[in-house]
Amino acid sequence: GEIICKESTPTLRGRSYQAIVEDMARLIKKLTHNSGISELELLGIGIGSPGVIDLRTKSVVFSCNLFKNAPLCNELENFFELPIYLENDANCAALGESQCGAAKNTSSSLTVTIGTGIGGGVIIEDKIFSGLNFAGGEIGHHVIVVDGEKCNCGRNGCWEAYSSATALIREARKAAGRNSDSIMNMLSNNNLENIDAKIVFDAYHRKDIVAHQVLNVYFKYLSQGLINMINIFQPEVVVISGGISNQDEYLLRTLKEYIHKEVYTRDFTELGLPQSTLKIASLGNNAGIVGAAMLARVGT
Amino acid sequence: GEIICKESTPTLRGRSYQAIVEDMARLIKKLTHNSGISELELLGIGIGSPGVIDLRTKSVVFSCNLFKNAPLCNELENFFELPIYLENDANCAALGESQCGAAKNTSSSLTVTIGTGIGGGVIIEDKIFSGLNFAGGEIGHHVIVVDGEKCNCGRNGCWEAYSSATALIREARKAAGRNSDSIMNMLSNNNLENIDAKIVFDAYHRKDIVAHQVLNVYFKYLSQGLINMINIFQPEVVVISGGISNQDEYLLRTLKEYIHKEVYTRDFTELGLPQSTLKIASLGNNAGIVGAAMLARVGT
Repeated sequence: GEIICKESTPTLRGRSYQAIVEDMARLIKKLTHNSGISELELLGIGIGSPGVIDLRTKSVVFSCNLFKNAPLCNELENFFELPIYLENDANCAALGESQCGAAKNTSSSLTVTIGTGIGGGVIIEDKIFSGLNFAGGEIGHHVIVVDGEKCNCGRNGCWEAYSSATALIREARKAAGRNSDSIMNMLSNNNLENIDAKIVFDAYHRKDIVAHQVLNVYFKYLSQGLINMINIFQPEVVVISGGISNQDEYLLRTLKEYIHKEVYTRDFTELGLPQSTLKIASLGNNAGIVGAAMLARVGT
Repeated sequence: GEIICKESTPTLRGRSYQAIVEDMARLIKKLTHNSGISELELLGIGIGSPGVIDLRTKSVVFSCNLFKNAPLCNELENFFELPIYLENDANCAALGESQCGAAKNTSSSLTVTIGTGIGGGVIIEDKIFSGLNFAGGEIGHHVIVVDGEKCNCGRNGCWEAYSSATALIREARKAAGRNSDSIMNMLSNNNLENIDAKIVFDAYHRKDIVAHQVLNVYFKYLSQGLINMINIFQPEVVVISGGISNQDEYLLRTLKEYIHKEVYTRDFTELGLPQSTLKIASLGNNAGIVGAAMLARVGT
């Protein structure tokens, strides 16, 4: 769970998967060499990739602008005599948090990544759960408002359309546009396009009432989806990850209050039964890297 | 998966769990004797009970009007030298459909029981999934309309509040009350209280436009929750169970159309990846009995 060395190389759009894998192989060999590690010491190689993964063929079936039917593992096996693992990057992040991060020492957890969208990774009995077709755990695309806001997935009213950072920014810009005296306008140099999630939280901490209202509504929708997920999965730990999660105490406290009030198992403590715990991610952007490496320990 | 003999005895409210278990033991001994089966031939005994189960102590922690902290397995062990298993009844029904019913020969399935409420049972890798505290899989209590209809669980807008048989009847009575020319009034002898799910479907089949509208809305909400569940679990099979499911072809066709249009994996067939299949339950009211017996095969 400790990163010994780390480097990146651009994938460069439009290239063949073979060319990209060759770069990956070169980078791995360079990193192990520079760290004084022999390939014989490696347990295996883990790849986290965006897109739809087919675990049967160890391929990326489809990944926007990057891969189509790319058997990354087979290709990388040309360069290494090691077991090679592939998983979706959001699932890798969940595995990372589960093995070495906020959900360490649990066997079941759910990692919710709040960013452009809402990504999810579900860990059950120490393994990534992804269903029949490796697409399970698309928790961002469960509708919480029938006929609600348009979502990128084609449905209306998905959790993601209300609780992603994108959704928060959308609502903050609308509210700041309607209220010229909101501090959010000052913080964004009176350009609504400049409003990001940080500005909303900054304005809130400066007691801006408009930012406060925007966050109130945002937290309400976010918590509704979280409570849904807890009622369904009852994991040991729910991990909140992504930029928004840096608002630590305020975010965590508010969400916990909502959960405590509404979750199906709210009386379980009295009954002597355990309850899910909400935590903030601890690995940050390294979660996916650590999780991909952990595939060599837990498999896919 | 075949029921050799079947009998029931009333639990009678207000009695101790010991008295109820004694009746259970007597009934089992009578049934095996009458069927010419020796206890030595039994693999084990499975109990399906309503309420919150604690698998650690094999107890019913709480079940409305029936049990409170009742260690049913330990108690029944006083009468038999056999492994004894206990699970929640909805979970037993899901296991029954999974082992011997509509989801036979799959290792992952989801059984949705539409009745007074919406019950759920999740099977992952041939076993009942119930999370940290054995309360996981409460799929009826995920909100699909934030701030929507009041639900018995204390939340507002749960799937159950829109898609249970109770919800269908509630909306049908409202609609029939507003539209005196609806056939539903005739079929219920002009007493709204008489309207049940069967009357709504009967009126629809007689081309009643009001029943048609009620069912349109009902199917829409039902499908939204189903698509949510498929996006999250991607099970091999989703089984629809309960009284409503007897409306077979019409129900199945309509729900499949909605799913096909909106599910996250709608393009997966083109990508060569499998998709969840929707099926109608095949074990009816026996699902729970068969599933409880199957606990002796798959464990808890």
